[in-house]
Amino acid sequence: MKILYGGDYNPEQWPREVWEEDYAALGLASIDTVTLGVFAWSHLQPDQDTYDFSRLDAIVERAVEAGASIVLATATGALPPWLAHEYPEVNRTDFEGRRHVYGQRHNACPSSPVFRKLSAELAGRIAERYAGTPRLVAWHVGNEYGGACYCDLCAAAFRVWLRERYGTIERLNEAWNATFWSHLFSDWEQVVPPNALSEHWRGPDHTAFQGITLDYLRFMSEAMREAFRDEKAAIRRVSDVPVTTNFMGMYRPIDYHRWAADLDLASWDNYPPGPREHARMALAHDLMRGLKDGAPFWVMEQTPTITASRDVNPVKRPGVLRLWSWQAVAHGADAVLYFQLRQSKGACEKYHGAVLDHAGRTDTRSFREVATLGSELAALGPAVLGARTPARVALLFDWDSWWAAEMMDGLNRHVKYPAVVLAYYSALWQAGAGVDVVPVTASLDGYDVVVAPLLHLLKGDVADRLEEVVARGGSLLTTFWSGRVDEDDNAFLMDVPGPLGPVLGVRVEETDSAEPGVVNPVTLPGGLVSEASLVFELLVPQGAEVVGTYGADFYAGTPAVTRNRPHGPDGGEAWYVGTGLDAAGVGAVVRQVLGRHGLVGPYADLHDVEHAVRVRDGERYSFLLNHAPGPVEVLAHASGTELLTGRRVEQGDTLRLEQTGVLLIHEDR
Amino acid sequence: MKILYGGDYNPEQWPREVWEEDYAALGLASIDTVTLGVFAWSHLQPDQDTYDFSRLDAIVERAVEAGASIVLATATGALPPWLAHEYPEVNRTDFEGRRHVYGQRHNACPSSPVFRKLSAELAGRIAERYAGTPRLVAWHVGNEYGGACYCDLCAAAFRVWLRERYGTIERLNEAWNATFWSHLFSDWEQVVPPNALSEHWRGPDHTAFQGITLDYLRFMSEAMREAFRDEKAAIRRVSDVPVTTNFMGMYRPIDYHRWAADLDLASWDNYPPGPREHARMALAHDLMRGLKDGAPFWVMEQTPTITASRDVNPVKRPGVLRLWSWQAVAHGADAVLYFQLRQSKGACEKYHGAVLDHAGRTDTRSFREVATLGSELAALGPAVLGARTPARVALLFDWDSWWAAEMMDGLNRHVKYPAVVLAYYSALWQAGAGVDVVPVTASLDGYDVVVAPLLHLLKGDVADRLEEVVARGGSLLTTFWSGRVDEDDNAFLMDVPGPLGPVLGVRVEETDSAEPGVVNPVTLPGGLVSEASLVFELLVPQGAEVVGTYGADFYAGTPAVTRNRPHGPDGGEAWYVGTGLDAAGVGAVVRQVLGRHGLVGPYADLHDVEHAVRVRDGERYSFLLNHAPGPVEVLAHASGTELLTGRRVEQGDTLRLEQTGVLLIHEDR
Amino acid sequence: MKILYGGDYNPEQWPREVWEEDYAALGLASIDTVTLGVFAWSHLQPDQDTYDFSRLDAIVERAVEAGASIVLATATGALPPWLAHEYPEVNRTDFEGRRHVYGQRHNACPSSPVFRKLSAELAGRIAERYAGTPRLVAWHVGNEYGGACYCDLCAAAFRVWLRERYGTIERLNEAWNATFWSHLFSDWEQVVPPNALSEHWRGPDHTAFQGITLDYLRFMSEAMREAFRDEKAAIRRVSDVPVTTNFMGMYRPIDYHRWAADLDLASWDNYPPGPREHARMALAHDLMRGLKDGAPFWVMEQTPTITASRDVNPVKRPGVLRLWSWQAVAHGADAVLYFQLRQSKGACEKYHGAVLDHAGRTDTRSFREVATLGSELAALGPAVLGARTPARVALLFDWDSWWAAEMMDGLNRHVKYPAVVLAYYSALWQAGAGVDVVPVTASLDGYDVVVAPLLHLLKGDVADRLEEVVARGGSLLTTFWSGRVDEDDNAFLMDVPGPLGPVLGVRVEETDSAEPGVVNPVTLPGGLVSEASLVFELLVPQGAEVVGTYGADFYAGTPAVTRNRPHGPDGGEAWYVGTGLDAAGVGAVVRQVLGRHGLVGPYADLHDVEHAVRVRDGERYSFLLNHAPGPVEVLAHASGTELLTGRRVEQGDTLRLEQTGVLLIHEDR
Repeated sequence: MKILYGGDYNPEQWPREVWEEDYAALGLASIDTVTLGVFAWSHLQPDQDTYDFSRLDAIVERAVEAGASIVLATATGALPPWLAHEYPEVNRTDFEGRRHVYGQRHNACPSSPVFRKLSAELAGRIAERYAGTPRLVAWHVGNEYGGACYCDLCAAAFRVWLRERYGTIERLNEAWNATFWSHLFSDWEQVVPPNALSEHWRGPDHTAFQGITLDYLRFMSEAMREAFRDEKAAIRRVSDVPVTTNFMGMYRPIDYHRWAADLDLASWDNYPPGPREHARMALAHDLMRGLKDGAPFWVMEQTPTITASRDVNPVKRPGVLRLWSWQAVAHGADAVLYFQLRQSKGACEKYHGAVLDHAGRTDTRSFREVATLGSELAALGPAVLGARTPARVALLFDWDSWWAAEMMDGLNRHVKYPAVVLAYYSALWQAGAGVDVVPVTASLDGYDVVVAPLLHLLKGDVADRLEEVVARGGSLLTTFWSGRVDEDDNAFLMDVPGPLGPVLGVRVEETDSAEPGVVNPVTLPGGLVSEASLVFELLVPQGAEVVGTYGADFYAGTPAVTRNRPHGPDGGEAWYVGTGLDAAGVGAVVRQVLGRHGLVGPYADLHDVEHAVRVRDGERYSFLLNHAPGPVEVLAHASGTELLTGRRVEQGDTLRLEQTGVLLIHEDR
Repeated sequence: MKILYGGDYNPEQWPREVWEEDYAALGLASIDTVTLGVFAWSHLQPDQDTYDFSRLDAIVERAVEAGASIVLATATGALPPWLAHEYPEVNRTDFEGRRHVYGQRHNACPSSPVFRKLSAELAGRIAERYAGTPRLVAWHVGNEYGGACYCDLCAAAFRVWLRERYGTIERLNEAWNATFWSHLFSDWEQVVPPNALSEHWRGPDHTAFQGITLDYLRFMSEAMREAFRDEKAAIRRVSDVPVTTNFMGMYRPIDYHRWAADLDLASWDNYPPGPREHARMALAHDLMRGLKDGAPFWVMEQTPTITASRDVNPVKRPGVLRLWSWQAVAHGADAVLYFQLRQSKGACEKYHGAVLDHAGRTDTRSFREVATLGSELAALGPAVLGARTPARVALLFDWDSWWAAEMMDGLNRHVKYPAVVLAYYSALWQAGAGVDVVPVTASLDGYDVVVAPLLHLLKGDVADRLEEVVARGGSLLTTFWSGRVDEDDNAFLMDVPGPLGPVLGVRVEETDSAEPGVVNPVTLPGGLVSEASLVFELLVPQGAEVVGTYGADFYAGTPAVTRNRPHGPDGGEAWYVGTGLDAAGVGAVVRQVLGRHGLVGPYADLHDVEHAVRVRDGERYSFLLNHAPGPVEVLAHASGTELLTGRRVEQGDTLRLEQTGVLLIHEDR
Repeated sequence: MKILYGGDYNPEQWPREVWEEDYAALGLASIDTVTLGVFAWSHLQPDQDTYDFSRLDAIVERAVEAGASIVLATATGALPPWLAHEYPEVNRTDFEGRRHVYGQRHNACPSSPVFRKLSAELAGRIAERYAGTPRLVAWHVGNEYGGACYCDLCAAAFRVWLRERYGTIERLNEAWNATFWSHLFSDWEQVVPPNALSEHWRGPDHTAFQGITLDYLRFMSEAMREAFRDEKAAIRRVSDVPVTTNFMGMYRPIDYHRWAADLDLASWDNYPPGPREHARMALAHDLMRGLKDGAPFWVMEQTPTITASRDVNPVKRPGVLRLWSWQAVAHGADAVLYFQLRQSKGACEKYHGAVLDHAGRTDTRSFREVATLGSELAALGPAVLGARTPARVALLFDWDSWWAAEMMDGLNRHVKYPAVVLAYYSALWQAGAGVDVVPVTASLDGYDVVVAPLLHLLKGDVADRLEEVVARGGSLLTTFWSGRVDEDDNAFLMDVPGPLGPVLGVRVEETDSAEPGVVNPVTLPGGLVSEASLVFELLVPQGAEVVGTYGADFYAGTPAVTRNRPHGPDGGEAWYVGTGLDAAGVGAVVRQVLGRHGLVGPYADLHDVEHAVRVRDGERYSFLLNHAPGPVEVLAHASGTELLTGRRVEQGDTLRLEQTGVLLIHEDR
């Protein structure tokens, strides 16, 4: 039992004799896991009536022989040519209303009956054939679900979905505020998908009717989930091995929270957009871990060297692969997998990094780093496996708010939901606070602090539950643009921030906006001046205390940040940040909030040094990760054993972390 | 009798009980006018065979009860869903050739017989039902006509329009210079609309055949006018109340001059793109006033606070709403109306500013400013109502030149017609000269000065009439790129500037161009050096005097600006500016032209202080408007009564104008 | 016998009486050549059953009467309206999958049987009628072939082409690495053209399957060539006069090397994108000359003044037209032709420069420069005509590598093939080395130096032939990204740079990339530090000597540039530049390579002074062209007669070259 180590392996692309070379090399890297068959549909089923498992049999057989743990795909990540040719309706119709013909991948219309039938059938046949494979550790359904289809089949399914959601056309019209711009529908048939040919202009974020577009996003996310469920059901009939599909972290098109219940374990593909995204990766890990109530997740894909899909694809610097892999483990990953084990020879990923390059070399820097990490993971063995991540801070993440905020007309298009969430997460991360990233439906009982950046759309009882957090002495921190709209994206017909007003003790009278680069200095406690930008809400306290004030424009001297104590000085606190504070400003607010609960960590003052903890059966594993651009020295916060070196560490010892350095301290009990 | 004050009101979006709250609040703001039913089609006609006026009856009834003046719409600004669904041909086909399905607004094909029939029928029924409504002050047809359709119905109508215009296919081929690139048409049926699938690349401004595209712009503008005329005719059968539709100032797709005769009064929606657009707004006001020979116009829409449609939507700063509203009145507005009186709860305009916000508050800064302005307008009463704006300067504005100049290939795509017009208008505005902005067909008899920036396309007898201005001692000022093409956009086969050559006494031998930012210093009289850019015409005087010369490049020392006196030193003057002078350069030239006629105003040296005059029955009202970023002091140019305060003003008094301040002096006779 | 001088002449656009004016003026400019009928289809064939040669008869007759040399077009550069209307399939379907309707030019689907039949028929009828025309010097087929079509006819033709290329579907699947992303085709019918509806996203350079897109580019280039060949065959049946079509220099969509064998002479249109493109023009001239093994070519089009198609179109500065025209002659042009002799009156080229402007003036700067050049060419007479350009340097240019490199995913999208080629060509040009720009299939026997920038795709025996160059003592210079893929764009399954590894003696272990602007200083021999950017290959010498090293990042101190001497110190050299050196760095490397062969020219140290040589029958003509921004003085490298002035020049004389100055020295034997 150990952390799984390996990745996608597609040996059908090269001759049988190379397989031997592959396994020899992978052994050198302590690789023990292979993901097979992700894009195998076209060789598994060469036409509608023929299934041919010979190639996959050989591949699986060789993997079994090598003693590898096996992740087996249902092979539906891309359509085979014959299917697209014989049934054109399986191809998607895009946002521009154009029916596609065959190409690329992730190309199936989720509403197509033929696709649904054949994909589930394929999944079932694979499951039947390989359910008994030794060391089969997971089923991998589809691949990176995403995108959208706007075809007539989807339109029809959308109408069915709407009818189920709303019951009557009157309720639909109300939800969409359809009387605006003469949109009162008199029949479900009149509804068309919102795209470039109907409600949209400029692109997916510009819609005349936010309510329609919001519902289509929900519908499409659900339609793909249905397709996933079909395949899972086909597997479940013959196998109890866990089923997953690889998610993509903060990925807008799919509401992963809605999908989470259908996964047996969460997994995701970690391709950060740049070299300095440690906080963003940590946030994504925590978001993925939050899908299954904190259970360990898998990194299903990462690249050993370069990613092939960007305009510019630099190599990972020395030590970065190891650092980022351990970061994943620190945040709860029990598998560290690559895309892919050997490079493809042709097509658009032929330069995507792989454990083995086109020449199959094992004497390269990249391979050596993969092998070093492999030996460390092997040496670690079962330690940390299954360990959970303790957290007293919850950060609310909400796809509905994301969708609603970014398609909103009227305030500031430069505000992006993930950027605001990341700003607050980064401050928590730098402060060393363990964070659970959870949906708004999650229980908040166990948390001292709830941070809800840009909680734009309020649904269900979330306002009440946030009030309860404060009522029981906890802290709530939320920001501008929160509490604006209900589940239908209709404005609350009351003071902003709507149902959050009472707990926050403030109302927003005006919302000013500015182009990026325009700054209003906001003075915070202790004299810190934060350069606020983009959004400037003009606040009128309704009981709240003013914590920060604007320094410029006609509202100079008025509140920008407030704190409410609705239950008196001894009760909880509700913070409201009405403007786009800079990182220093967010950091100051966050630390004040954490401080009341003693949640600022021991390494909080070391910039870009990450401290993360996993706990199992009372055993406490502390990860120290140096993301800073040079070595740092830290004073150990606890005594224990550093597991990567086996050395003892005493509390107060000076520990040196090289650039990209990692320490894993098994703390004394 | 007073200036109308109010705006769009769509109470069908909220419950009946809120209406009472609405009227109570609007009364506090002295609001007396409501525009009703602009997007009401879908509730007025729920299907093709049913009309249901119950909601509108109640709305109108309540407005009547409140004593409001009523502007009633024909409700055709957006199609109802059933119409788009049952008759797909009413939906537009866009520039990319894509037939749209249902969505957004302003979405009807103007050539669709079904749309034409049903829209006129609806207008007629509304007119019949509400013609006798008390205080019905105007009919509001459609809404913000614009855009374009490229469907087969439009193609067929275009061919009919062409046949009427040209008579024979030979004349068509000649007009379009069709022999170029093998385009000789042998049958009208071969003509297709110019769009992304035919003559265009990159977008609407890049066409292989300017003549075809120019004609399609004319046709489409006319097609929409025909749709408007249908509705107006249906109204006129039962009502003599004035008919209007809301225009949009300098709006490229529609030739408002061609439409003007069909309006009973001009009205427009004033949404400036930024906070410092006072000269642009003044130009737009004057352009709108020019549609009806100087008669007062209406501001049909403006926002009290933010506009919802921009990427970034800042609030209007304190005092700005009042300043801009008085500016409209100063330029001839007899109505100041808002979009809208109460915010919509959902869809893309839910954050658009309104007199009443979602909470219905009357204790906000925004509401207070609206109310203050309301009380001022109420106190003013009938003064200035109906007053005209005296002007001795005409500025020629020409949609054909706009279209032709911006789709032209071969010189400089960075030159934009409205920017050039605005540069010259701004100089006139800063100099305090009253300006009529008129079509090239307007009589020029009453003007001392005619300014014709970028008069690219010369049609009719305009060259002769400009010559007459100079012949009778007036001044003509025109610029680069003028006199280049005839009505068909074919080059004059003579020296540039074509028929304007004789009066200007100059010929253009070469036209050099440069990227934005490249400057050639032009020396003007008095030693002023203007940083000229974009266009550099190389001029050969043919009788004209050189007034400005280039300072750089191989044409350093050659003429850039000339003045011709074809009738000797005592006759009129014809100025030609062959380059893109900067604001200081344009200002210097304009003031020299104005100076000869004594038209430089008394406040010309106060930057961003506007002086505008309205006159009725010999009564003279002088508006002083401070657009500068701080207070200014001015010496009163005349004695009279300041109407907003009731105070006496004596000529020569020092008057203080606060930032955004306004004075309205009723001058002594 | 002299260099042809003239250009496109389309007098069907203006009245007969103007023709007389035209010829009188053209005579003043010593113009002797007219290109007729390029876009004449619509008047030559007004409908499918009618041919009408009356207009062309008159035009040809008048040209014959004037004694002009005549280039006669087949008139198929644009479809006539009736053809597009009656046979919609002749119109192209674009990359977005949209069938176009009538418009623009170069608008025919090359796979349309109707177009193919009618275009060849027209070419044949024109050839029959005018084959006997006096002084007919060339046939001009089509016009600027280019673009692409994606219609069903092309799809079908593509499948035929693939079947011929690959024979079996298995071989197709292998070539395209189709097993990647489930693309195993089981029937040719399943193949669709790669475009925005199938394999592409973002645009033509982003494809999921490079192999498919590469083959479609090859197919489309060949399909147009077939159309050209049809027309040529129709001509050849009745005429032996040379046939050409006007190419466009470095034009990506068409593989001119594949077409070259079908041309009787090469010709091209020279419209440089900016004013300082002398090296790029030189490269394009040499590329065009290389099409026919060094035989003289024609400049079929250039503009006397401005080009109409750019956003900003500055006039050619004084002297530039003459300088660039002589540059063309210096590089092997035997014809200097304009587009066009008189300006069109309408449509998108009405402002395109012409010998005669709309007023027909002959007293303009532009006309005077045209006339001066005309008189010089006339005075030169037969000298240099037919002379060849000696070169000991070959630069390999390869459309396959261009296509493959720019659609590649995974390294750096900012690297552009022509920019890399131009960087190396510019260094050769500045050093005064005569260069032949040749296909990879060309014999390399005659060259001392072979430069192969970014030879990404290696096909045929090119690796072997490059090895031979080094084996016989020559020098090879190649760069990063070379030797990566085979003819199918599949990676070589060996160390990079693939089959070039042995001769270069180096392997590339990693390829790092950076955004534009990021610099890594590379130290070269002599201490020169070059600012390298975009690509940084990490090199492991396998016998090669390190010549340049990186100065920064984790690979500081490792090799960036290497030189291999596989045959010992006295053999040839193989240079590898693994990074994007700046101009100084490329210059230093190139001069070191040239230096070993004594190929650095006498004027190499005078920046932007060009030296080019033509030789015929042992007579040597040296052109000195001053592209620098001021006058320069040079010491004559040889004695001889300066032909433009007739003056003697002695070796060592100080010669003054004015800005844009030209000297043409007929060297003493």
